[in-house]
Amino acid sequence: MPRQFPKLNISEVDEQVRLLAEKVFAKVLREEDSKDALSLFTVPEDCPIGQKEAKERELQKELAEQHSVETAKRKKSFKMIRSQSLSLQMPTQEWKAPSISSLPSPVTPVLPGVGQSVQEPFTVPEFQRVTISEDYCAGVTVDDYEQAAKGLVKALRIREKYCRLAYHRFPRTTAQYLCTMQDEKWKMEDEVCPDFHPPPGKLENPYNLDDAPGNLDYVVKMQGGILFVYDNKETMKLNEPRSLPYPDLVTYTLDLSHVLALIADGPTKTYCHRRLNFLESKFSLHEMLNEMSEFKELKSNPHRDFYNVRKVDTHIHAAACMNQKHLLKFIKRTYKTESNRIVAEKEGKKMTLKQVFESLHMDPYDLTVDSLDVHAGRQTFHRFDKFNSKYNPVGASELRDLYLKTENYLGGEYFARMVKEVARELEENKYQYMEPRLSIYGRSPDEWQNLATWFIEHKVYSPNIRWVIQVPRIYDIFRSKNLLASFGKMLENIFLPLFEATVNPTDHRELHLFLKYVTGFDSVDDESKHTDHMFSNRSPNPDIWTSEKNPPYSYYLYYMYANIMVLNNLRKIKITSRPQKEGPKPEPTQVLLPWSPVLQYLYYLAQIPIAMSPLSNNSLFLEYSKNPLREFLHKGLHISLSTDDPMQFHYTKEALMEEYAIAAQVWKLSTCDSCELARNSVIQSGLSHKEKQKFLGVNYYKEGPEGNDIRKTNVAQIRMAFRYETLCNELSFLSDAMKSEEITALSKESQHQETSQSSS
Amino acid sequence: MPRQFPKLNISEVDEQVRLLAEKVFAKVLREEDSKDALSLFTVPEDCPIGQKEAKERELQKELAEQHSVETAKRKKSFKMIRSQSLSLQMPTQEWKAPSISSLPSPVTPVLPGVGQSVQEPFTVPEFQRVTISEDYCAGVTVDDYEQAAKGLVKALRIREKYCRLAYHRFPRTTAQYLCTMQDEKWKMEDEVCPDFHPPPGKLENPYNLDDAPGNLDYVVKMQGGILFVYDNKETMKLNEPRSLPYPDLVTYTLDLSHVLALIADGPTKTYCHRRLNFLESKFSLHEMLNEMSEFKELKSNPHRDFYNVRKVDTHIHAAACMNQKHLLKFIKRTYKTESNRIVAEKEGKKMTLKQVFESLHMDPYDLTVDSLDVHAGRQTFHRFDKFNSKYNPVGASELRDLYLKTENYLGGEYFARMVKEVARELEENKYQYMEPRLSIYGRSPDEWQNLATWFIEHKVYSPNIRWVIQVPRIYDIFRSKNLLASFGKMLENIFLPLFEATVNPTDHRELHLFLKYVTGFDSVDDESKHTDHMFSNRSPNPDIWTSEKNPPYSYYLYYMYANIMVLNNLRKIKITSRPQKEGPKPEPTQVLLPWSPVLQYLYYLAQIPIAMSPLSNNSLFLEYSKNPLREFLHKGLHISLSTDDPMQFHYTKEALMEEYAIAAQVWKLSTCDSCELARNSVIQSGLSHKEKQKFLGVNYYKEGPEGNDIRKTNVAQIRMAFRYETLCNELSFLSDAMKSEEITALSKESQHQETSQSSS
Repeated sequence: MPRQFPKLNISEVDEQVRLLAEKVFAKVLREEDSKDALSLFTVPEDCPIGQKEAKERELQKELAEQHSVETAKRKKSFKMIRSQSLSLQMPTQEWKAPSISSLPSPVTPVLPGVGQSVQEPFTVPEFQRVTISEDYCAGVTVDDYEQAAKGLVKALRIREKYCRLAYHRFPRTTAQYLCTMQDEKWKMEDEVCPDFHPPPGKLENPYNLDDAPGNLDYVVKMQGGILFVYDNKETMKLNEPRSLPYPDLVTYTLDLSHVLALIADGPTKTYCHRRLNFLESKFSLHEMLNEMSEFKELKSNPHRDFYNVRKVDTHIHAAACMNQKHLLKFIKRTYKTESNRIVAEKEGKKMTLKQVFESLHMDPYDLTVDSLDVHAGRQTFHRFDKFNSKYNPVGASELRDLYLKTENYLGGEYFARMVKEVARELEENKYQYMEPRLSIYGRSPDEWQNLATWFIEHKVYSPNIRWVIQVPRIYDIFRSKNLLASFGKMLENIFLPLFEATVNPTDHRELHLFLKYVTGFDSVDDESKHTDHMFSNRSPNPDIWTSEKNPPYSYYLYYMYANIMVLNNLRKIKITSRPQKEGPKPEPTQVLLPWSPVLQYLYYLAQIPIAMSPLSNNSLFLEYSKNPLREFLHKGLHISLSTDDPMQFHYTKEALMEEYAIAAQVWKLSTCDSCELARNSVIQSGLSHKEKQKFLGVNYYKEGPEGNDIRKTNVAQIRMAFRYETLCNELSFLSDAMKSEEITALSKESQHQETSQSSS
Repeated sequence: MPRQFPKLNISEVDEQVRLLAEKVFAKVLREEDSKDALSLFTVPEDCPIGQKEAKERELQKELAEQHSVETAKRKKSFKMIRSQSLSLQMPTQEWKAPSISSLPSPVTPVLPGVGQSVQEPFTVPEFQRVTISEDYCAGVTVDDYEQAAKGLVKALRIREKYCRLAYHRFPRTTAQYLCTMQDEKWKMEDEVCPDFHPPPGKLENPYNLDDAPGNLDYVVKMQGGILFVYDNKETMKLNEPRSLPYPDLVTYTLDLSHVLALIADGPTKTYCHRRLNFLESKFSLHEMLNEMSEFKELKSNPHRDFYNVRKVDTHIHAAACMNQKHLLKFIKRTYKTESNRIVAEKEGKKMTLKQVFESLHMDPYDLTVDSLDVHAGRQTFHRFDKFNSKYNPVGASELRDLYLKTENYLGGEYFARMVKEVARELEENKYQYMEPRLSIYGRSPDEWQNLATWFIEHKVYSPNIRWVIQVPRIYDIFRSKNLLASFGKMLENIFLPLFEATVNPTDHRELHLFLKYVTGFDSVDDESKHTDHMFSNRSPNPDIWTSEKNPPYSYYLYYMYANIMVLNNLRKIKITSRPQKEGPKPEPTQVLLPWSPVLQYLYYLAQIPIAMSPLSNNSLFLEYSKNPLREFLHKGLHISLSTDDPMQFHYTKEALMEEYAIAAQVWKLSTCDSCELARNSVIQSGLSHKEKQKFLGVNYYKEGPEGNDIRKTNVAQIRMAFRYETLCNELSFLSDAMKSEEITALSKESQHQETSQSSS
């Protein structure tokens, strides 16, 4: 049965939610740079008066509640439910995680002994646990608690729906709790995972073009910005596309509205803020109590330490993956050994390398890292405009074209050679991997083919590299230069070649091969730039988006996301949209993540992968020690460390190690912390199932200590148990609240009886 | 004419100074760990009440001064002197530094055009200067100003005296000002510099034992802890030693008293505190105004950038110079390739490598960085006791003996091999040097010979390494185990072999050769440990120091220093005592430097080299971002960056680059800042005159921009000019004050005249 995207109807959604979302959106746009823009999403922590007022209001509410018989009853039932789920959450002496193959029974998510585990036994050493008795979230009124929980569960369901249909990862534990809440049975078969191509064996030729499967001879056509696949020309004429799911515009914008409205919802904000604070304090306690026990685990773990656990650089620009000294040395080397080689063509005139430098009045011997100027000096802070121009060595785009591009007179040979030098170092290091970004601009339909040719011709394959495609959101620039007729054309240039290589691989052998090593999409732009268009179901479709204005981020995301979803349902080998830019989230998310408690808490509950690059952020936006990485890690968000841009920000040849070293030093991370970050990075990465099993343990896809093989990850089982139990505890709050509807009904009934009794 | 040490007589010193010093010392001892111990040395910055009171007192003083005719006159003359020296300090458009061959005339230290410079011309680009008009140190009364200046000048003279006689470096500019103050002419001939052995040429054999000069057949004998050199046995019998200078006990302890008393002197504290604050703010202004100009200089400086300026790791332990991963790999490699080799002997039984590991119940394959346990985890903070035991891999001293010692069954082969692997990396890197510490304990007279044998046998020489000898201050431990009869014996074991190799090199060819590559002495101990003995001229001499108590730091220092001074006056190739531990300074200096404004200001004026290792301090004592490195650098202290202990604190193979990278990231150092640190490190190092000329420029020993070759150092001339002019400005305050004695005399005279006139 074809998987279909569940459609929403406008009438199903509370009109108020939509209005609120529009208000939120408008406010963000209007007050972009002012501090006020944040006020909608934040809690008044910095403002003592605001804080005092808020407290006063809370107190009044609570007092009012005390006088209500009904509320008192509901409160009491909550406490009962809570103490029940809490007592069931307490693990016995011998830690046993819930078996994954059997759904935890509704009220006993961590009940020991339920179900039979078929995996090899694992143990968790004893450790000290932090539990709060009688807690159902002190300081939040019953009504607020219920409202927040409902909103959060709804947002999680939205996330789950999109992940499932696009073959993105959604955490099993959260999925199980969501099932429990609606009395459904969680089924392993329903779980989807991104399925990445395993690397070729050691004796296999990674450039083998002969194993492309036969053409399906399907026909692909874009309509309104979405690609449709037809069995043949006839069905195309009849407008009968194959049934492949994608979110329709109305549903998407409604879901978006819900999330936006939730971000600004008062009770939800308060609730999330409190839970996040709790998570942070709980980790501090855990650390104090169990630091030595965790460390003992690591010390007695043979052979494995931080140096030989696998780590993936989950976010790095290919054109910046070599550090500046490397680029400089490479330039000097080429000048020394091949200065008479023809390397460029300018206005029909062929130029040798020597002539290129002469035309720039430059002697490579004199070149320095300072004059190369790809390093983000202190002048670059807060200046995104300057930042982008930095990518031109010596301010000369000629050198950028020659050395850092895949398309030029040399067919990108120099760039390929440098990337391969970086790859050789990774391979020698053995434990480090990276996912560099290559750009597809959508300016021309040939870009994909050219990239594939570059990859194969210069043999850029490395077992330690998976590729991510980055799409700069610069339609406006191309349109203003008349390089594109509409936004739809750009989408077509980006996606049509992918579909064609998928349905007719024999006709597109090179691209088909290259796509095996591409694991994701990413999208970038100057995030301080905004358009004033609010994306809604009334927005013009891409075919008629011919204005010079750039569409908003959410518009880009919707069309990229929808097409990736269709594509993934068509392909066996999946492609994800990547961590930082994942999912149907509105513009403000990236900038606001540190400040919006609601988003942060949702990222936690759904364990949405986040790749953070404190060194790169340090120089651009945020002082290093103020970077929220440590805080996020403590709270339990799914963080990995990445370098982003070694050319600008890293001094040594081991950029990723430098990133870890500085984080460990500044925030005094323990070995267990560092290894947890490394483990997260492998999980987030586009490495194949087989590789992940090899690097993390055969059960890596299971959550909690059961999914951890300390012999491979060097992450303490105590840490894994703490994370897992903590997530279960947070989710149980939501499921407790969802049970409350019954309780409310019950309590109202009994109240009704009482009233009728007293009146009689 | 023999150089002799000028003796002081007790009666020459104000008894009060001695009493104060004793009080200071006693207070430090008594209140070691309490915050009060610092109060003597600090200004009450953190305490608002104290601060307010202090301000009140200052105001009263100033008001009192205003009513005094005499003070008003003196104040006026100061302002006149000041405006004069200030106007003379203003450089003309074309910056020209004072010629070094001619002494700057008394009131014109930076007068342009004085003397003829024979060096190649150098230029300083125009830049914006910060000057304060009518400034002779606002907020300090005339009396206090004079008192502080006199004390500081006296301390500088003490420092100069010791440097000169021990062949240590003293900054030329400061020396010139000191001359000016007593109307003496500074002579280049009087300047002494440490003279380090140049490395052998590329074709020369660094282990050539044949070029030892003939024996002098002098006789050396220790008396009262000092070594005396006699022409022959007859003169020894007659007790007629060669005339070699060393500070006698009385002089040394009196000098020490003066410095100690000065540290606690109220007006001096206030004055230094104000000057240091001024220096810091002045640099901030300079940075704001000239950052871009400095950067422009660097950008237009061909070929040279931060990566290819020379940098020396000025403080690093040889047994920790490889990072932990390196040590681990080396252990595993030896086990794989030579497990059947006999590597140890225990109770007469020879053991293979395999047997050693078996006896420890260990399989090297299982070993990890965590189990190796040489990394300073978070448990080590503030725990010096634990810290020391960390040096035993896997807590097993057997492994430490086998892999990290120069004396063992293998003659230190493994240790030598690892050091050589580190050396090869430095040589390949080309621009990095290091000065690792090797220990001489003074437990046995053979230690030096053994070390020399280790060095020659395993061919440990590297052009990128100079060696520093570290003497742990652990007499008490040796004495308690009855390994030494007295402290004098320890001193003899440390110094006698050096003297014998110096006077009779033919008889000690190996040690004579090794000493060519040794450039300094260093001394270490747990600095939180203290004895209650106060060093004075009444302290027992080392021959009769037979107690089990450890002598105080100052006692150790005096005897080491005195013997090094005698030795250096005997040798052509000099040996210094090293940066962190230099000179005749009392115990509290190291710990107190960040808190004592007087010491800090003296370190500034005398440009005393300081090697800082923020990463190592980060883990042990101080949070990284709170490390005073940035503050010290801004104030203009002579700072270099060093790693101290890569085995514990560094992740990458490029430890020194990692140290620079983190400092640059956390404190946002500019390229110019980093290059200034690198330049300082070369100046502080024991590299030879020839090498320093090659690495820094032929005039490197000159101060200010004249001594800088930007083509080699990549330090902006603007920065050099700023540093130089600022130092001159600070020194001119002192010389202005010294002129005041004449003025005071003059003013008193005129006052006398006025009085007599009015009375007549």
